Amino acid sequence: MTISLKECQLMDSQDTLAGLRDLFDIPENTVYLDGNSLGVLPKATLNRVTDVVKNEWGQGLIRSWNSAGWFASPQRVGNKIAKLVGAYENELVATDSTSINLYKVLFAAIQKAKTSPYSAQHRYVLSEKSNFPTDLYIAQSLCAQFGLELKLVHWNDVQAHLNSEVAVLMLTHVNYRTGAMYDMASMTEKAHSVGALAVWDLAHSAGAVPVDLNAAQADYAVGCGYKYLNGGPGAPAFVWVNSSHANEFHQPLAGWWGHATPFQFTTQYEPAAGVSRYLCGTQAIINMSALEVGLEAFEAAQALGGMDALRKKSLALTDLFIQLVNERCTGFGLGIATPLEHSMRGSQVCLSRETGAYAIVQALIARGVIGDFRAGGASTGEPDILRFGFTPLYIGFVDVWNAVEQLKQVLETNEWQAEQFKQAHAVT
Amino acid sequence: MTISLKECQLMDSQDTLAGLRDLFDIPENTVYLDGNSLGVLPKATLNRVTDVVKNEWGQGLIRSWNSAGWFASPQRVGNKIAKLVGAYENELVATDSTSINLYKVLFAAIQKAKTSPYSAQHRYVLSEKSNFPTDLYIAQSLCAQFGLELKLVHWNDVQAHLNSEVAVLMLTHVNYRTGAMYDMASMTEKAHSVGALAVWDLAHSAGAVPVDLNAAQADYAVGCGYKYLNGGPGAPAFVWVNSSHANEFHQPLAGWWGHATPFQFTTQYEPAAGVSRYLCGTQAIINMSALEVGLEAFEAAQALGGMDALRKKSLALTDLFIQLVNERCTGFGLGIATPLEHSMRGSQVCLSRETGAYAIVQALIARGVIGDFRAGGASTGEPDILRFGFTPLYIGFVDVWNAVEQLKQVLETNEWQAEQFKQAHAVT
Repeated sequence: MTISLKECQLMDSQDTLAGLRDLFDIPENTVYLDGNSLGVLPKATLNRVTDVVKNEWGQGLIRSWNSAGWFASPQRVGNKIAKLVGAYENELVATDSTSINLYKVLFAAIQKAKTSPYSAQHRYVLSEKSNFPTDLYIAQSLCAQFGLELKLVHWNDVQAHLNSEVAVLMLTHVNYRTGAMYDMASMTEKAHSVGALAVWDLAHSAGAVPVDLNAAQADYAVGCGYKYLNGGPGAPAFVWVNSSHANEFHQPLAGWWGHATPFQFTTQYEPAAGVSRYLCGTQAIINMSALEVGLEAFEAAQALGGMDALRKKSLALTDLFIQLVNERCTGFGLGIATPLEHSMRGSQVCLSRETGAYAIVQALIARGVIGDFRAGGASTGEPDILRFGFTPLYIGFVDVWNAVEQLKQVLETNEWQAEQFKQAHAVT
Repeated sequence: MTISLKECQLMDSQDTLAGLRDLFDIPENTVYLDGNSLGVLPKATLNRVTDVVKNEWGQGLIRSWNSAGWFASPQRVGNKIAKLVGAYENELVATDSTSINLYKVLFAAIQKAKTSPYSAQHRYVLSEKSNFPTDLYIAQSLCAQFGLELKLVHWNDVQAHLNSEVAVLMLTHVNYRTGAMYDMASMTEKAHSVGALAVWDLAHSAGAVPVDLNAAQADYAVGCGYKYLNGGPGAPAFVWVNSSHANEFHQPLAGWWGHATPFQFTTQYEPAAGVSRYLCGTQAIINMSALEVGLEAFEAAQALGGMDALRKKSLALTDLFIQLVNERCTGFGLGIATPLEHSMRGSQVCLSRETGAYAIVQALIARGVIGDFRAGGASTGEPDILRFGFTPLYIGFVDVWNAVEQLKQVLETNEWQAEQFKQAHAVT
C-alpha cells in the first residue's frame, strides 16, 4: 500500500484548489517548500507595483496619499487579513514589522495586566524556549523595562507553568521550527483562568491554518505579511487587538498615524479610536500594495471553500510528505519533528537529523527543492531541522512526490557530503 | 530692477546642476514644489523595482536575502545616506519609519542622560512647540514612561531654556512648517554645556542642506527617506548614533535584525556592535530598493559639487521665489514665514496668510503648481501656511517664475474663493 507517483498525479487532478496555482509565478523546475519563510510572487503583483510607482507616485505624487488610498491602506489591507484570522471589521491593521507590532501589543498587555486582581503577584511573561527568537528578544526588552521576568519553558510544559504569577502568556500559534500548533482557544482560556492575558504571534498561522481570534477570545495578536500571505520581502506585518482592549492605553510607539486627527497637527497626542492607534509613522506603501495583491489569492480561494478547504489540502499535503518520507527515506537517520496529530500541526513538516541537516538542505536546493535549515543547538536543546512548508495555494501533490524523490536521491548518493554544501555563511 | 522671465531662463541656462533634472520623471505641466513632503520619481526606480519584484523575489525567492543583498541593505543604503549628513561609514542604517527611529534614539538618549552628573536634576526633554507633531507624540510617550516632562517652547526661546534640568534637547533641524533652520553645531554645543544630549531630526535636512553630524558632535539623529532623498512613498527612514554612544544600551525595539548573530537563533538577545543594533525586524525590501535608487542622484551630483553646490542652488531658488513674491504678489495679505537669513533657512519657503491659505493652495494645484498647506491654529499659535519646497536636484529657475506667476493669477482672479477649493477633507 505504498503511494506511487501516479496516485499523486490523481490527487492533483482531483484537487479543486489546484487552479489557484495559476495565480502565482513559480520558477521552473522548482519545488518551493519555503513559503513559510517568503511566499512566492503572485502574477498580479508586478502590474500593481508598476502602477503604484509609475502612476500613483510618479504622476499622482503627494495627491496619492488621498486619491490612491495610500493613507487608508493599513485599515483597508488589515480588513482583508482580518477575514483570515477571525477578526471583525476594523479590528486589525497592516503596519510595520512583526517585531515592532509585538512590542506595541506586549507593552499594552503588560499595562493591561496591571489592572488585574492578580497584578501584585505578577512576576512573569511566560513563553516557550523554542519560540521565534525575535519574540523573545522583544519580550526581554519589555520585561527589563517593567521589572518582570521572561520565563521560558518547553513547549508542552507551558500549561503547567500558567499560574497567578503570569502577567502575560506570549505564544506563537504555530512553531517556526517544528510546525507544532497550539490550541489557541484552550490555551487562551487557561491563561484567562489564572488572570493572565494571551498574546499570539500568527506569523506561521495567518493564511496557513484556520484562526479565529474572536472565538478564542484572544487578547492581542500580531502576524507576518510575507510568509503565507505572499506579500513580498518585508511586507507590512499586522496587529490585532481585542475590541474590548482596543481603546485602552496609548501604545508606546505613539506616532502621528495613530493620532485621532493627524492632520490637525496638534502638539498633544490623542490616540485614534480602536486599533488605528497601533499605527505609528508612515507606511511602506510600495510593499503595502504588494501585500494587498497577495491577499487576492485568498479572495479567489473563498469561492472554493476558503481557509477550511485550504486547511484540508494542507493536511493532505503534509500527511503525504510524512508518509512518503517514511516509505522512501528510511535508514538515513531522519526523524519527523512535526506532530502527527492534525490538531497539533501547522502547514509545514520538519525533519530532524543529528548531523548534516544544513548540507542536505543545500543539496536539495541545488536540485530545485527549496526548503530551509533551522539550527538547533545548546540554547534550545532541540535538534537541527530540515524545514519544509506546504502552501496549499500553490503546492500540489506531485510537488510533494518530487521533493521526497529528490531527498531520497540526495541521501542515497551521499552528494550532500560534498564540500560545496558545507555551511559557509549565515543563512536566512 | 525687477526680475523678468528672461532672467530666470538665463539662470537656468547657467545652472551647472540643471542636467540632474533629467534623472527624474516629473509630470508634464507641473511645477512640483512639494518634494519636502514626497520627492519625485527617479527614472531609474521603476526598472529597479521591477527587477526586485520579478527577478529577485519571483525567481530568487528566499535565496535573495543573501544573493541579492537584501539582508545587508539597511547598512548598504545607510552608508550612502551617511555621506549626505556627515556620518562616517557604518554609523547609519536605513530602517523603519522616522517616528519609530526617534523612539529608539530618544529612549537611548534618556538612558544615556542617566549617566550624566546632572541626572538628579533632570526633569525635561526640551523641544519647540512647532516641531513636527509625531516627534512630540513620541517624546510624550517616552517622557510618561520615564517620569520626565516634555517642555515645549517657541523655536527661538530654546536656548534660553537650556539648563541642567534638561536631559535631552530634541529638535528638528529644519522646521517642517516654516523652513527655519537651527545651527546644529551651536545648539548641540549649548546642550552639551549644560549636560544635555542633542537628538536631531533631519527629515527636512538630509539631501536638502549640508549637514555634518560628526562636526557638530551631535548625539543621535533620525531622518526621512521619502522627502529630499526621493525614496518613494513610505521609504525607510534612517537612524544615526554617534559612535561614542553606539555600543551603549540596548535600544528597546530589540528585534532579531539588531542581534549580534541573528541566524544562530539563540534565545538571549545580544545586540550587534554599532548602529546595527538599532535595527528591529524585517525591512520593507521593495521600498528599500527604491530608496537606494533615490540616492543615486546624489552620487551624480557629487561630480558637480555635491551638497555644497546643491545648497547654493537651493538658496538661489528660494531667494528668487521670495523676491518674485515680494515684487509680483503684493497687496494680497501674504507674509514670508521663512527666515530671510541664509544661515537660518532650509530648502523651502513658506507664505503665511490669515485666511484662505488652504483654498489658495488648492487653486494652485488645479493650475499645476503643487505646494501644500499646513494648518496653524490654537495649539501652536502660528498662522496657516502655504508651503513650497525647492528641491535643487530637479527644480529650476523658470519653475520658480511659473509658480509665482500662477500664484499671482490665483490671487488676482480670486478664483481660490470658488466652492471647489474649500476644505472638504483631511489633507496630507
